[in-house]
Amino acid sequence: MRPYRLVILLACFCCLGAALAAQSVRSPEVGADRRVTFRLNAPEVRKAEVSLDLSTGAITLAMTKDPAGIWSATSDPLVPDIYSYKFVVDGVEIIDPGVREFVPNFFDQGGLFTVPGSPPEPWERTEVPHGQLHREFYSSKVVGDAREMYVYTPPNADLSGKTLYPVLYLLHGYSDWANGWTVVGHANFILDNLIAQGKAKPMIVVMPLGYGEPKVLDSPGDLDRNPVWQTNIERFTDELLREVMPRVEREYPVRKDRDGRAIAGLSMGGAESLYTGLNHPDQFAWVASMSAALLTAPEKNFPHLDASSTQPKLLWIACGRQDDLLKGNRELREWLASKKMKFTSVQTEGGHDWPVWRRNLVTLAPLLFR
Amino acid sequence: MRPYRLVILLACFCCLGAALAAQSVRSPEVGADRRVTFRLNAPEVRKAEVSLDLSTGAITLAMTKDPAGIWSATSDPLVPDIYSYKFVVDGVEIIDPGVREFVPNFFDQGGLFTVPGSPPEPWERTEVPHGQLHREFYSSKVVGDAREMYVYTPPNADLSGKTLYPVLYLLHGYSDWANGWTVVGHANFILDNLIAQGKAKPMIVVMPLGYGEPKVLDSPGDLDRNPVWQTNIERFTDELLREVMPRVEREYPVRKDRDGRAIAGLSMGGAESLYTGLNHPDQFAWVASMSAALLTAPEKNFPHLDASSTQPKLLWIACGRQDDLLKGNRELREWLASKKMKFTSVQTEGGHDWPVWRRNLVTLAPLLFR
Repeated sequence: MRPYRLVILLACFCCLGAALAAQSVRSPEVGADRRVTFRLNAPEVRKAEVSLDLSTGAITLAMTKDPAGIWSATSDPLVPDIYSYKFVVDGVEIIDPGVREFVPNFFDQGGLFTVPGSPPEPWERTEVPHGQLHREFYSSKVVGDAREMYVYTPPNADLSGKTLYPVLYLLHGYSDWANGWTVVGHANFILDNLIAQGKAKPMIVVMPLGYGEPKVLDSPGDLDRNPVWQTNIERFTDELLREVMPRVEREYPVRKDRDGRAIAGLSMGGAESLYTGLNHPDQFAWVASMSAALLTAPEKNFPHLDASSTQPKLLWIACGRQDDLLKGNRELREWLASKKMKFTSVQTEGGHDWPVWRRNLVTLAPLLFR
Repeated sequence: MRPYRLVILLACFCCLGAALAAQSVRSPEVGADRRVTFRLNAPEVRKAEVSLDLSTGAITLAMTKDPAGIWSATSDPLVPDIYSYKFVVDGVEIIDPGVREFVPNFFDQGGLFTVPGSPPEPWERTEVPHGQLHREFYSSKVVGDAREMYVYTPPNADLSGKTLYPVLYLLHGYSDWANGWTVVGHANFILDNLIAQGKAKPMIVVMPLGYGEPKVLDSPGDLDRNPVWQTNIERFTDELLREVMPRVEREYPVRKDRDGRAIAGLSMGGAESLYTGLNHPDQFAWVASMSAALLTAPEKNFPHLDASSTQPKLLWIACGRQDDLLKGNRELREWLASKKMKFTSVQTEGGHDWPVWRRNLVTLAPLLFR
């Protein structure tokens, strides 16, 4: 190499090298013993903590500073799972500058890491054939905004139209982005693994943006007085039926009969899946909710439900035992029972969080389209 | 609503509401005057700054704290563009907790915002038909890792195989992730806009991961002694030709002739596009580099080039006038001229950064497949 070339190249990368050196503490580091070490290079900071989300709620790990100004903390051994976390630095919640995966959320961003299982957990990327994720950009006339959705097609799918796949509409929760079910939920890897093991049928999974009224994001705590919540769920159904489903059925080889369509969702998306699925039994034979939120006034939201209604092939209602919404879900089930609706009730360990919902999907997907 | 239901629902959202209130400073806020205001709620912090990347380098904006503990700073009017930035809080570089778009980068993460133009700039999402982004997960036998790539298909593409589209292999730079060209480069929106205006031919754009030897990420400043750089570029070519291209040609309706294939890239990807394209003239008729890096020893890397070589239909070599790599690019062009190769030399304003590369793609895409 001619020396001046070397100089140019080194000049180009020296800033990068310096930045790398300054920031290059490894964080998070997942040990073979499933303990996780968090590090932050911050000599001037007075206090640093890790706020780590467990399925039962967030815990705080105090970080200590070494003489070089590097803060660190190590967790106890963690159950194999995907974890979200933040640092709290002099009172400010920050995303770990060393992390490679981010929580996509309107209110509660952070970092993500995986503690792998042995054998791998069903949500881990493994050496099986992988499906594709398709990201679609479109304008919604119903809602009046520019939005996007994600579509999973199964491994080695025949997209020519010769094969028609069953389709699951899978809905995220309040505050999530449209990619919540893939980035945090690992829905694509869950399906890859279940399909490879023969446990789930190859299916197309559509993950639309779940806000029928985006203003709902401005009103998290104003449920009883603000009609935006009702508008949100009604318009979501409208957008799904009038825009998302026609687009999917035009672009992907999916079945168009009720037996070939499922709808499921978590939290706000659980309410949406019940509201949309149970009010449109001609469209969906498979209806599931996980930790459903906002199911007030069932007699108003499901005015036509009774024993003479077309029963879903599966009505599946799951909630974690430590979820604050468990009581509301119990009441909903009681109300459905009073209307002679048949359903499967699923109670698991865990609260209102992704560890529960990933496991819910692992349990649910094999039940669909049977 | 029955009162206890309200309590349950409010209990569920109160944490969220509190978090929202604590963090709910709006940041970044892009004004109609193209000034951008950055805010951070951090009462305990002693010093906060914005590090804002301009096309000519980063500038620092001092933030001031109001009595409520909210830090803020407002920029001068900014040229319409997409900007990346970080906060520096008590000496720690952090991502703005309020930002919604993140820079995907191994060393230099941060937030992103757009200052829109009027009319919109070519990289903005506009109300034209949009193509799709397909994300593929696969294992590379050549490299020996699990990786992914992104594929853009044009608006309303006929994917049945009846139409064969020309294909552009578009390569990211050193330290980028595989999604750099879409998240920061807005390559999909650039193509959407150019195609809608009839300026570019509908084409499929493949954006693979650009590391032939991932260990290259451990050696940013060790170019002359570490053979990992040569391994990286050679193995990248190998992976592209033996794995990426066969996969793309199996799964998408792309042309398989040299006139229907282009390769272009930025920085490290610029070197890779020249190395791959010029050494495989039977495969690529359109070869372009933007701010190409690491083009040492051209006689070694391009041993067969001379006036008798098969000339590309386009050999396009761009570099910004403020780029530290300009001199190296000039030398490369001199060397190519000495070998009687025909090429188009493009010099623009700007340094080694995305504002240059987005504009490069806007200029380049219309030239391809003519």
